[in-house]
Amino acid sequence: MRRAIVLLSGGLDSSTTLFLARQKGYKASCLIFDYGQRHKKEIISAKKIAVAAKCKYNIIKIKLPWKGSSLLDKKSKLPDRRNIKGIPSTYVPARNLIFLSFALSFAESQKAQAIFIGANQIDYSGYPDCRKEFYQALKNVIRKGTKTGVEGSSVEILTPLINKTKSGIIKLGMNLGVPYQLTWSCYQGGRFPCGECDSCKFRAKGFKEARLKDPISAFVRQ
Amino acid sequence: MRRAIVLLSGGLDSSTTLFLARQKGYKASCLIFDYGQRHKKEIISAKKIAVAAKCKYNIIKIKLPWKGSSLLDKKSKLPDRRNIKGIPSTYVPARNLIFLSFALSFAESQKAQAIFIGANQIDYSGYPDCRKEFYQALKNVIRKGTKTGVEGSSVEILTPLINKTKSGIIKLGMNLGVPYQLTWSCYQGGRFPCGECDSCKFRAKGFKEARLKDPISAFVRQ
Repeated sequence: MRRAIVLLSGGLDSSTTLFLARQKGYKASCLIFDYGQRHKKEIISAKKIAVAAKCKYNIIKIKLPWKGSSLLDKKSKLPDRRNIKGIPSTYVPARNLIFLSFALSFAESQKAQAIFIGANQIDYSGYPDCRKEFYQALKNVIRKGTKTGVEGSSVEILTPLINKTKSGIIKLGMNLGVPYQLTWSCYQGGRFPCGECDSCKFRAKGFKEARLKDPISAFVRQ
Repeated sequence: MRRAIVLLSGGLDSSTTLFLARQKGYKASCLIFDYGQRHKKEIISAKKIAVAAKCKYNIIKIKLPWKGSSLLDKKSKLPDRRNIKGIPSTYVPARNLIFLSFALSFAESQKAQAIFIGANQIDYSGYPDCRKEFYQALKNVIRKGTKTGVEGSSVEILTPLINKTKSGIIKLGMNLGVPYQLTWSCYQGGRFPCGECDSCKFRAKGFKEARLKDPISAFVRQ
């Protein structure tokens, strides 16, 4: 059976990716990162989703002694995506590369063939590390800089959602039975999703366009 | 003043690299990793060297919940390099990529222009992540996958020792005034260097070929 490491944040995209990896026949093992994000809600969600998917998970705790992102700094204001151009303040320097390098280490030590990441360049076009070119370039690094790569059996990085719209992802996930009621998208760490932040808005728009009902909508602050 | 992040392990190569970065006019900030290596001696050395170079340092604590390297597993036997071909068991999967991705995150958040790493493909030809090709491939990842890269001011990864022999490194370091008496090379974590492991042997050979006296030689177990 082929084995895969799945990066799981507890959000909609990574949860869909996990269920997709399973459907493609991979035995998946999840990596969850506790890296000083604004709140722990998404970590709790990630654990629940791994359990729902009957997959093992590991939590990697990282303490970055620097800031440089509104996603790491509770005091800094979150951006309103409608009003920004370029790279949003929620960009965490080299975050996906950090996550992927851990996943690569894990994959090599477990003899897993693939890493799945739910990166998406449609909704997150502002993030350099969510774009196809980044993943393309990374292939070469893996080929040249890892044991399995040099030996001719590079760990593959798979980004099945890279070109999908949010509504496309949601339709796919609903078909796969992703328990969206367990996911957490909101940038705030309140009891219920705020319904106001960019992430909540993207999610609402995605469900609307997919003509589906978000199972968490009953809980969203009105 | 140009700023640089220097990866500092406490060994001979990274210490020389730090002093070289300073000589090249960079304001250097060190990153030291506590990643579950066999012993903490090299971390103590790294701190002393950063202080001797009058540089700030940050220690990043990483707990890898997997093994896959004799450098992480005290129970596993260390290799005798004379008897091995290919990649030695001391290879830690994706280790340098993990270190460099943290350094990249740090560099971007501090607006540093460069990262220095003491990788060397002469003595460590068995390690895929010590070879030029790896660093070459990484350039493209930084260009495509980071904020500064996309904006046209990529963080540079500098490997000034990549093609040097151990004796060449030592001669360079002696000229730069590197306090080699503070460095730690031995794979074992004893009170004194064992004088027996690959790393001790490489070091002794380097000093011999450079016709210089190792300031720690008085302490090496005879």
